[in-house]
Amino acid sequence: MKRIVLALGGNALGDNLHEQMIAVKSAAKAIADLIEDGFDVIITHGNGPQVGMINLAMETAAKFDEHLFYIPMSVCVALSQGYIGYDIQNALREELLDRGVDKPVATIITQTLVDENDPAFADPSKPIGAYYPEDEAAEMIQRGYDMKEDAGRGWRRVVASPKPIGIVESKTVLALLEAGQIPVAVGGGGIPVKKTEGRHLKGTSAVVDKDFASAKLAEELNADMLVILTAVEKVAVNFGKPDQQWLSEMSAEDAERYIAEGHFAPGSMLPKVEAALEFVKSGPDRKALITMLSKARDGLAGKTGTVIH
Amino acid sequence: MKRIVLALGGNALGDNLHEQMIAVKSAAKAIADLIEDGFDVIITHGNGPQVGMINLAMETAAKFDEHLFYIPMSVCVALSQGYIGYDIQNALREELLDRGVDKPVATIITQTLVDENDPAFADPSKPIGAYYPEDEAAEMIQRGYDMKEDAGRGWRRVVASPKPIGIVESKTVLALLEAGQIPVAVGGGGIPVKKTEGRHLKGTSAVVDKDFASAKLAEELNADMLVILTAVEKVAVNFGKPDQQWLSEMSAEDAERYIAEGHFAPGSMLPKVEAALEFVKSGPDRKALITMLSKARDGLAGKTGTVIH
Repeated sequence: MKRIVLALGGNALGDNLHEQMIAVKSAAKAIADLIEDGFDVIITHGNGPQVGMINLAMETAAKFDEHLFYIPMSVCVALSQGYIGYDIQNALREELLDRGVDKPVATIITQTLVDENDPAFADPSKPIGAYYPEDEAAEMIQRGYDMKEDAGRGWRRVVASPKPIGIVESKTVLALLEAGQIPVAVGGGGIPVKKTEGRHLKGTSAVVDKDFASAKLAEELNADMLVILTAVEKVAVNFGKPDQQWLSEMSAEDAERYIAEGHFAPGSMLPKVEAALEFVKSGPDRKALITMLSKARDGLAGKTGTVIH
Repeated sequence: MKRIVLALGGNALGDNLHEQMIAVKSAAKAIADLIEDGFDVIITHGNGPQVGMINLAMETAAKFDEHLFYIPMSVCVALSQGYIGYDIQNALREELLDRGVDKPVATIITQTLVDENDPAFADPSKPIGAYYPEDEAAEMIQRGYDMKEDAGRGWRRVVASPKPIGIVESKTVLALLEAGQIPVAVGGGGIPVKKTEGRHLKGTSAVVDKDFASAKLAEELNADMLVILTAVEKVAVNFGKPDQQWLSEMSAEDAERYIAEGHFAPGSMLPKVEAALEFVKSGPDRKALITMLSKARDGLAGKTGTVIH
């Protein structure tokens, strides 16, 4: 068990630039522990708040200044990879150097291939950007946005979230791994692209789920484990009910049954378990771990977290 | 003569997203020619119009929407690397696949180390973003921007342009080269960072000249040649005068004398010749070529362009 894809959750990044710089420094410590333990780590991350911010900034600005132009969502994802990757690579480099470890860390601008016939394009569901009160949300719907109420926390813009079918730059990520370096890749799920004219790629208005993109990358890299980091230490069945039960492990069959029984919340634990399952089922001896960042070291040592096998 | 750093000029990118996608496709053809000729190519590029656009968009948007925050110039450079690198890697990948060449192309988010005591911080000189009429420029100066008139074409914002003293991710670029891949790096001259607390890096409000950053990268990669692409086929002395003379080659000593005699325009040919000189003087058998993109293949074959040796 050596090569692991580590999918950072939103809490490793924060909601704005200042929060991000602080959150990333603390994430870097937990990641550096794993590198010191001898794991070959590939870092992936989400971009919900950030890509929403960038998209909104570009659109707002284009309305007020004639020098500025509309930037499509796919390009906003590319910008968000630079925005977040820069902070992650810098913070981890710093933490490793402080520990006397001289391992280069670098962000690869990554494209994720999606199927243009993916049914997700007809049903935008991935929340991005800030939370809005109902009246502002109504106004944004008028302006052509898809908006959904998000778990009682307010309204958010939603975009299509098609499934990844390939990671365009996985050979680059592999080359860095093989050189003993630490790649940051498929940021925000990767820049969503679809095929045109056979081999050509074209950006498409969507945001790929970062856990599914991480599972696809882990599959293409032949990783030993996909580690999905979230806000809880373990996955539970009957979550929030009197008979709630934390799981230390589940087989792929267990996971599929729990999903069918509706144990996992859509937009929350469900896509994480589904992404874990995708990877586990993609080849023999592939495992996934769902836990929180601060427990990742213990989780990889088999002491906590939920292992899907 | 195998390993070359190819510094794309602004005309390979255009001034907005639509122009960029078209310009980059045509640049990709010229670059693919060099790859087919057997050169190991590292691609670098500027970001003047793009980083100005991103910075202006972020600032404009932050004024009009409370959900948005101010983004410093260093972070805007990181965003611009994603914005431009995505288009370059996609266009070149496509062109190579059309020719049956399966070589991965990928953008590395790159930081460039500068000296916090660089005198450039006291004298902002690098133009970024759009051109403004005089009255708008006066208003922007009032708002705290540094603005300068740019060669009769209007006023532009200027930022500090310190000299690069190191490329933080050069080992990553090298690993990709050694794996036979094509890295896109130090976009926009790299994200300008200075050292704090010894090894730690902190973003700084500046834009590093892309030709100087490319020279530093070429030096750290032990490249054979730095190719600086611009709008003219050759460098001239007495440019625009009756005794104008196009140069096929110049020694480092010639170049220094021509610089002292004032043959090259500041902000135009001067920094290109200076950057070429930096690389040529950094080690034995290092050459630089200044020409236009469409002549790069002939230039590398010794048929045109200006070689500095």
